[in-house]
Amino acid sequence: MKTMGIGDLALVRPRSFPDPDATARASGADDILVNALVTSDLATALGDCSYVIGASARTRSGRWPVIDPKGMAAAVVARLPDTGAAIVMGPEQSGLTNDHLSRCHALVHIPTSPVYGSLNLAMAVQVLCYEIRMSVLSAAEDGTSIGDRREQRDAAPATAAELEGFHAHLDELLTRSGFLHPDHPKQLRLKLRRLFMRADLDQNEINILRGALTSLDPDGAKRRNP
Amino acid sequence: MKTMGIGDLALVRPRSFPDPDATARASGADDILVNALVTSDLATALGDCSYVIGASARTRSGRWPVIDPKGMAAAVVARLPDTGAAIVMGPEQSGLTNDHLSRCHALVHIPTSPVYGSLNLAMAVQVLCYEIRMSVLSAAEDGTSIGDRREQRDAAPATAAELEGFHAHLDELLTRSGFLHPDHPKQLRLKLRRLFMRADLDQNEINILRGALTSLDPDGAKRRNP
Repeated sequence: MKTMGIGDLALVRPRSFPDPDATARASGADDILVNALVTSDLATALGDCSYVIGASARTRSGRWPVIDPKGMAAAVVARLPDTGAAIVMGPEQSGLTNDHLSRCHALVHIPTSPVYGSLNLAMAVQVLCYEIRMSVLSAAEDGTSIGDRREQRDAAPATAAELEGFHAHLDELLTRSGFLHPDHPKQLRLKLRRLFMRADLDQNEINILRGALTSLDPDGAKRRNP
Repeated sequence: MKTMGIGDLALVRPRSFPDPDATARASGADDILVNALVTSDLATALGDCSYVIGASARTRSGRWPVIDPKGMAAAVVARLPDTGAAIVMGPEQSGLTNDHLSRCHALVHIPTSPVYGSLNLAMAVQVLCYEIRMSVLSAAEDGTSIGDRREQRDAAPATAAELEGFHAHLDELLTRSGFLHPDHPKQLRLKLRRLFMRADLDQNEINILRGALTSLDPDGAKRRNP
């Protein structure tokens, strides 16, 4: 929960609380356990949350709409500014009872493999919290890419002139070596250019590549070691 | 992994394997452990996977492109019909080394909370596998087969072994030419690897580049024109 920026935990009739094992496993996130609301009934846990989603391992739900984690996250985030939303996770073995379900506006189902669908509770919580965080971030960024995702560059991107200088150097050397033929070289030249363009070279990398080319130039070597 | 329909696990130098604790925790998914490839080096683990993504807890990556889990899943699914893709997860404490990174085409970062970003390894695996499953399902629901999302390529993506062959060839030639020095070559080698990894080379391009290298090899030229 905490890795995904979510902090409000309510525990309904926990088997053991506080539990030294749980506290130890929470490591740096034990503040969430310390601040958890511990109660004997779901109604108290839900408090004034106006939107309640139950987590379900089943896709057949009778009359409840079943949404996927992304749809759940969108619905939760859309309600966040004004009102609270809650996700209800049942006990690991038995899941939610009809009484629990009767307090839910919708169910969320994680589409696990039909071959092996038994996602444990911790993993289900992680996936649902992850989708809520992705939805919060995407709402905040309003569709633009997250700053975190931007590439970090060591150096400025190569200018068009620097790229052309590199390609001319490569071309000249490979023509002299006999690899590129002046008569029908078009496809091969194009392919070489394309692969280096895909690499989106920066100025430092251009310098490295040109240094490498110079080191491979028999005449250049002659000049260096006459 | 198994709950998300993913079955191929490779373990590089596991601390303990088989481990009774791991087997017990895997419950119904212990077949994945039994069938895991256990090896002493990452190259063997990657096998002929042609697209390699490293999981990174950091957003600063030097020059590797950093994508989010959804972007990673889309890229992986686009490559699935023909070729393998691998996600490399580092050890829990230390993460990936530069040597690991040098085999990656891109990094995936899960945008955790800046307040508490320490997602443990199991949770990170769950989130990434979840996104791959969602991407597979969404391809199926679109009515498009996974193959339809394939990128347009002239040739099959280069396998890890083909990439290593090219890098070894480049390294050998540039060491012989004096451009790479056996004593302090680390940063320069890494930068060269990284820029070619970003280009996401295909087999045809590997052949072109190796042909170019051979043409620039003074000893190779001697052999051709004695």
